[in-house]
Amino acid sequence: MDLKKHLRVVPDFPKKGIQFFDITTILQNPEAFKYVVDTMADYIGSVPCDVIVSLESRGFLFASAIAYKLGKSHALVRKPGKLPYKTVSESYSLEYGTDTVEMHEDAIAPGQNVVVIDDLLATGGTVDAAIKLVEKLGGKVTALSFFIEIEGLDGREKLAGYEINSILKLRED
Amino acid sequence: MDLKKHLRVVPDFPKKGIQFFDITTILQNPEAFKYVVDTMADYIGSVPCDVIVSLESRGFLFASAIAYKLGKSHALVRKPGKLPYKTVSESYSLEYGTDTVEMHEDAIAPGQNVVVIDDLLATGGTVDAAIKLVEKLGGKVTALSFFIEIEGLDGREKLAGYEINSILKLRED
Repeated sequence: MDLKKHLRVVPDFPKKGIQFFDITTILQNPEAFKYVVDTMADYIGSVPCDVIVSLESRGFLFASAIAYKLGKSHALVRKPGKLPYKTVSESYSLEYGTDTVEMHEDAIAPGQNVVVIDDLLATGGTVDAAIKLVEKLGGKVTALSFFIEIEGLDGREKLAGYEINSILKLRED
Repeated sequence: MDLKKHLRVVPDFPKKGIQFFDITTILQNPEAFKYVVDTMADYIGSVPCDVIVSLESRGFLFASAIAYKLGKSHALVRKPGKLPYKTVSESYSLEYGTDTVEMHEDAIAPGQNVVVIDDLLATGGTVDAAIKLVEKLGGKVTALSFFIEIEGLDGREKLAGYEINSILKLRED
């Protein structure tokens, strides 16, 4: 399927000079969404995986359907203050300043195999923080799965040593 | 299935005196999650529905799997500044102040039948704003579907005139 045809590209969002890949047009199209979910699920079904971990909020949209399809446990990485129970947290650098993500401390049991899912891999900063959270809880990250991978931003380099799967490879320029 | 057994109740979150129903323990349990998704999907499959509309962020977790299962188009209601394309917006009252939600202006086509999904119905403020967005775009809201309904907060009264389905009815006290 030519997924690129179903993906809307919004120029200058969230700021001037950035091309934003808008996945909402994939969600609007059931055939395209099914293709993406099934293809990601095929990959995740081929690696050791006890728990799917997904990143707020767009990661939830893919991970939830994949977890349903594969019958996997699903744990969330969220922004601070969103998870109600006891959490572990991890900060990471942004272009200006830092940001923090959290997981429930009982989201992963020691020794569990984990696949981390997000909609898009760009610089890899948030995913790197999510990996550190999983490892802090004793989980083993067996793979990282993305719908879109933006090439040329060194995401793969930042996440070196982890298995990375993506369906649609794009460039911002 | 005794879903209540799988739901964690966190006292005093997000503030003192509030009991928070933590759906992450449902996501962690594939059988419980499948039961919730299948039961919500059975209901949604029984009403006219061209598009599923879900609310950021926990609504995404149920709606995405349901949209996948039923092969339905899925549109998002998000907080301001999150949706990259042209939006319509709607404000609603909180205990102190107001909040705003947005949808893409092409998320719904005039005349489409829409089911609105969220994880939890409490006072109904956000859902009411979501309904207004759908109607602003010319959609017809045929039903509202929730995993949990908190009774005693007048959510049903606020949403009077709409079909409401929920799986688990709870009280805060």
